[in-house]
Amino acid sequence: MKQPVDPKVDGLFRYRIDLAYDGTDFNGWAKQPGQPSVQAEVLRALATIFGDSKTDFDMRVAGRTDAGVHAEHQVVHIDLSASQLRRIGRSRELADRLNTLLPKSIRIHSMQPAAAGFDARFSATSRRYRYRIADRPTAQNPLQARYVLWVRYPLDEAKMHQAAQQLIGLHNFVAYCKPRAGSTTIRQVREITVSRNKQHADMLEIELEADAFCHNMVRAITGALIKVGVGDLEPERLGELLNATKRAGEFKVVQPHGLTLIEVNYPAESEFAAQADKTRKMRTLDEKEGLTE
Amino acid sequence: MKQPVDPKVDGLFRYRIDLAYDGTDFNGWAKQPGQPSVQAEVLRALATIFGDSKTDFDMRVAGRTDAGVHAEHQVVHIDLSASQLRRIGRSRELADRLNTLLPKSIRIHSMQPAAAGFDARFSATSRRYRYRIADRPTAQNPLQARYVLWVRYPLDEAKMHQAAQQLIGLHNFVAYCKPRAGSTTIRQVREITVSRNKQHADMLEIELEADAFCHNMVRAITGALIKVGVGDLEPERLGELLNATKRAGEFKVVQPHGLTLIEVNYPAESEFAAQADKTRKMRTLDEKEGLTE
Repeated sequence: MKQPVDPKVDGLFRYRIDLAYDGTDFNGWAKQPGQPSVQAEVLRALATIFGDSKTDFDMRVAGRTDAGVHAEHQVVHIDLSASQLRRIGRSRELADRLNTLLPKSIRIHSMQPAAAGFDARFSATSRRYRYRIADRPTAQNPLQARYVLWVRYPLDEAKMHQAAQQLIGLHNFVAYCKPRAGSTTIRQVREITVSRNKQHADMLEIELEADAFCHNMVRAITGALIKVGVGDLEPERLGELLNATKRAGEFKVVQPHGLTLIEVNYPAESEFAAQADKTRKMRTLDEKEGLTE
Repeated sequence: MKQPVDPKVDGLFRYRIDLAYDGTDFNGWAKQPGQPSVQAEVLRALATIFGDSKTDFDMRVAGRTDAGVHAEHQVVHIDLSASQLRRIGRSRELADRLNTLLPKSIRIHSMQPAAAGFDARFSATSRRYRYRIADRPTAQNPLQARYVLWVRYPLDEAKMHQAAQQLIGLHNFVAYCKPRAGSTTIRQVREITVSRNKQHADMLEIELEADAFCHNMVRAITGALIKVGVGDLEPERLGELLNATKRAGEFKVVQPHGLTLIEVNYPAESEFAAQADKTRKMRTLDEKEGLTE
């Protein structure tokens, strides 16, 4: 796959697309044969405007969400040729046109020419995810059943928050990852918070920000934190597992529906290309599989 | 249908059930032949525990929501005979048992013996509904697509709020109601607010509290307020229409999915029976059709 960072070089024009989706009815972001995916829907809508693309418009995504995981803010880029560009016309916003071609479960918030050096995946400095848990029977709101994990026991969010702080920093998260050939498990976690929702005290929110996440990492950390919160796992164990050399079996990877990608962060425009170069060098091993979650 | 207010009188025992539901996949609250309904699901679950009931447990509901309308807090009562009561057992909370028999789109928050004189419908002093609208394309959050109306133009919420204040008080809301034989259109509106959601400024929330609502009333008022908010209807018109003698054709009944019953209010326990008597006298004409929305 070509990777033109500067549109001028290859005669291609890079566009940034910001979008959101309800992952319930999709088998994840990534296009796969015979499975519904968010990417396949977006590609289908793009092809209606720009014509079929054998290279899927060289699309690249910031966060490759798993089956059932949602996104309130996802970012992708595509590269368009001059002849594809001519099909845009000037009648309406591109985002509006794409939205009329997409189900309500996927919404394009903007589609704009990207600044020089922008790469949706490699220019990103961090991703932020939120996991929601209702820990009281009366908090089981059917209007949030698709987006919130229901547990039947009260959780100690202060204890969970404190335990989570051990994970901050650059660590090998192999204990918390589903291994993937060629993918590193070394990640830099910037922030983890466990708190009650301001409007709904019966709803716990775990928010995690890291440079990137390995496969199943947020859901495994959430599973570990739930065990801490219910008193079935010593808080210290979360820190000890950062010295592990293989996947831990002491906690579950929780269900995907509580998980939402809420933010992708980028540096200032002038840093897009430099950040992309830096990320590529650090992640040469990841190339085959791509970032996940 | 029998209406035992005091369980001791008829040898029946009244239970109060508090519940919530996502109305998306139901043809409204009320049981109808060949149509999925919230009531039918709840009755089916109750029958699994208590056995079949030819009178549907004499169930009565506080707010008879329309097709596609949700409830974060709905209240019903049922009457159980001594022999039905004996099937309860003591193993687990009734609410828990019902929830295992229901889809995730319906959650029972509690099922408790009712205080003397309680009637879910007639003891209620008011109902409160919320209608949600996203009025910016970037506010079209797919995670709320089932619960929020998306409009393509910005709305002036201050103007809408001010216009709405004219509707407060005891009025004939015939202009805002879909007529139903034998149902009064005279209602007492206690409060209407139009404001931006505290967490999401792109989301408008209309909240209405009234003693009860006639059919389509909240959705018609919302349709009128949207026209005011976009500048297509003079705010004063909303007040003038309180003198109308038939349904107005100047605005639409908006879609049901933005509407949620959020609260049913009752007086102090000692007032349950008196309030029920009072409501029954005021609403004799409503008897056939029942309260709606």
